[in-house]
Amino acid sequence: MTKRTLPPRRFIKPTFEFLIEKKRDGGEFNQDEIRYIIDSTLDGDMPQHQLAALAMAIYFQGMSAQETAELTEEMMLSGEVIDLSHIAKPKIDKYSTGGVGDKTSLVLVPLAMASGVVVPMMSGIEHDYVINTLTKLGSIPGFKGNLTNDQFAAQLGKIGGAIVAQTPDLAPVEAKFHALRKETGTIPSLPLITGSVLSKKLAEGSEGLVIDVKWGNGSFIKDLEQAKQLARSMTRVGRSMKRRCVALVTDMNQPLGDTVGTALEVKEAIELLKGNGPEDIKDLVLKLGMEIVRLAGVAGSTLSAKQTIQRHLTDGSALEKLKDLVKAQGGDPSFIDSPDKFPQAKHVRKLPAPKRGYVHTINAAMVAHGVHLLGAGKNGANDKIDYSVGVSEIKKVGTQVKQGEPLMMIHYNDEARLEQALEYFKNAYRLAPKRPTPPPLVVERVA
Amino acid sequence: MTKRTLPPRRFIKPTFEFLIEKKRDGGEFNQDEIRYIIDSTLDGDMPQHQLAALAMAIYFQGMSAQETAELTEEMMLSGEVIDLSHIAKPKIDKYSTGGVGDKTSLVLVPLAMASGVVVPMMSGIEHDYVINTLTKLGSIPGFKGNLTNDQFAAQLGKIGGAIVAQTPDLAPVEAKFHALRKETGTIPSLPLITGSVLSKKLAEGSEGLVIDVKWGNGSFIKDLEQAKQLARSMTRVGRSMKRRCVALVTDMNQPLGDTVGTALEVKEAIELLKGNGPEDIKDLVLKLGMEIVRLAGVAGSTLSAKQTIQRHLTDGSALEKLKDLVKAQGGDPSFIDSPDKFPQAKHVRKLPAPKRGYVHTINAAMVAHGVHLLGAGKNGANDKIDYSVGVSEIKKVGTQVKQGEPLMMIHYNDEARLEQALEYFKNAYRLAPKRPTPPPLVVERVA
Repeated sequence: MTKRTLPPRRFIKPTFEFLIEKKRDGGEFNQDEIRYIIDSTLDGDMPQHQLAALAMAIYFQGMSAQETAELTEEMMLSGEVIDLSHIAKPKIDKYSTGGVGDKTSLVLVPLAMASGVVVPMMSGIEHDYVINTLTKLGSIPGFKGNLTNDQFAAQLGKIGGAIVAQTPDLAPVEAKFHALRKETGTIPSLPLITGSVLSKKLAEGSEGLVIDVKWGNGSFIKDLEQAKQLARSMTRVGRSMKRRCVALVTDMNQPLGDTVGTALEVKEAIELLKGNGPEDIKDLVLKLGMEIVRLAGVAGSTLSAKQTIQRHLTDGSALEKLKDLVKAQGGDPSFIDSPDKFPQAKHVRKLPAPKRGYVHTINAAMVAHGVHLLGAGKNGANDKIDYSVGVSEIKKVGTQVKQGEPLMMIHYNDEARLEQALEYFKNAYRLAPKRPTPPPLVVERVA
Repeated sequence: MTKRTLPPRRFIKPTFEFLIEKKRDGGEFNQDEIRYIIDSTLDGDMPQHQLAALAMAIYFQGMSAQETAELTEEMMLSGEVIDLSHIAKPKIDKYSTGGVGDKTSLVLVPLAMASGVVVPMMSGIEHDYVINTLTKLGSIPGFKGNLTNDQFAAQLGKIGGAIVAQTPDLAPVEAKFHALRKETGTIPSLPLITGSVLSKKLAEGSEGLVIDVKWGNGSFIKDLEQAKQLARSMTRVGRSMKRRCVALVTDMNQPLGDTVGTALEVKEAIELLKGNGPEDIKDLVLKLGMEIVRLAGVAGSTLSAKQTIQRHLTDGSALEKLKDLVKAQGGDPSFIDSPDKFPQAKHVRKLPAPKRGYVHTINAAMVAHGVHLLGAGKNGANDKIDYSVGVSEIKKVGTQVKQGEPLMMIHYNDEARLEQALEYFKNAYRLAPKRPTPPPLVVERVA
């Protein structure tokens, strides 16, 4: 029997107006239409004002699971897709929607490496005042985040992990689309977030992805229900693109861990890699780490996954992997052994509790904003990041404090900047006479 | 007591992103914000993609009555507002959302003039295949629709009426906004339609406005409920801008009158001005005419309004006013006296009924499309309008026909064009064995 050859499918290009009206009226795009939209966006054939109207129509009408998957795939195929098939080990990446004080990647990447999992991690752009992993690693002299795709693949083959900046040849249409969305109020669209994130993440060559969807006052997702929907949308699309995917919906209603900054957070990560560190982030590292090793097939049962992670956190092997990674990317590994080498701020002062009581809420976004004002982020093109500033010893929700006791320690170099930042730190804290019930760290697991 | 002077209100310009997000989330703009949007659109300060996103957000979230009124006023104030205060007589205009075979303006303007009402009418742009009044008047040799605002005002003072093209100095922001809306699927937004139409109409100097909101298969408003909402939105805004306003929601589910074309429609209008012509349009002219004279204060009671209109339709005074108007605008008035002077098509043939039965529905948009294909509209920049083509003796909904009997007479000059048009005419008609109940001509009166 001969193979029946079908005539090539004929696609008659619709007008952009037609596509906008179709979505406006709640219609569902087929694959040809989505490909046409993505191609036209990449080529610049679709005028910006029509793309903006389409994005807003998508914001209001949403996209089906099928549409979202096709959008993601077409966006991914707009650029290079890294081939890591020459690496035999399982390749799993981790993605977080971003949070304040979130240094889990600094711990998880070496931890997974130590467990025999290859982690091809490209760090996305920073949004609002969330400091990304690469900026934090910038506190180590010599560390380079800009690798070519070939260098990236080579390093993964050699040491099993890399944390680099996203290269512009991955899903290039995403950058164009994202820039437009930022200016048109269409960032918070779940299918567009899904397509945006996964088109880049799945181009990095991993076979699986563990996703940390954060909700709360320190996340751009303030609503728990929306976070759950995003988790479902992402895992669904990941699976339809033949990747193993798990998402955890986690709490971001206070800073994660005890520090917010750059060097301060790297130092906290080093502590965590020695088996020490604050409970909340220790717990999150364990849960996310377990997902990584199970997705990788390194551990079969929950128990063995837990044992694997706990072992590598205490036996020093994960810490060694961090040194390997830092060294491979040009950084000075002696900073990992001697964390007091990290730059230190000239002054450290406490934020005193204005009254006695329990820490009721901490607005994480305000803390982040304050840390940014201290100098931990770039304020202009020529502004340099001050790696020494930040906050530490953060009193977490539920902690009892006496009047005048420190709510956190502020590391600063400049009095004027401190004054500005203090307003944010003071307003971030609410004390109450009764002990509050802190929200659970992991709200939901979506597989 | 001295007048208390308030400090000038301070308006801190928001970002365009903020304004888009505000509307996206269902917020209500204040007057300062609306003025800022309109000013920024006029100046080109607001990028097109942000304006497009805003328009789509307005499409989904709507605008309050207050917002719509302020939008209309700010759009009107973006350009010249014609001052007709030197004319003592009442000044009332009429606006129709547009329909197929709608020649009411050709009858109503001279009728109102004969009744002592000044009609400052500027005709809008054509949309889809609806032929506007000026194109129809173009069938009279020499007729000019392009007057300056000063010529317009002078003619109104002299003969009491004018039908001219909208000048670009009236509500100039509207043209910019409308062009963007056409390309971004945001035409069918009720507040934007209201603002678009009324900002221009109320700049023409009239004290009152009679609005004909058409709904049905020959209108761009297919939904009766939406037509009612638009009627309410327009009269509400008109009143808030201190104009007398009445709207009628009328049927556009079949062509109005017995003809569709240019010269054919002018000839039908002349018949109507002699007290003859088809019942449906005669009835609509009477109802709209009564609203005009009542709004103008020329007639107090319904009865006296009716008598005024009927008198001027039969005593020949309205017909004389049409001649005055044509003459004032450079046209040959002898065409009004001798309608057989109008260009005539080389061929006239019937559209035969394919079977016996009752006319159940007529798709007016299809009839309009067919007439357009015959040559009654421009198909390109160099294409000339063929004033002789069109259809006449249209069998209306509810009429009983035998097989082979004409459903309409087609006036054409070109066989190839006829072939194309015939497809539309044939598909426009649906015959049924039982007599249908035609929808009422005037569905609702909104005052």
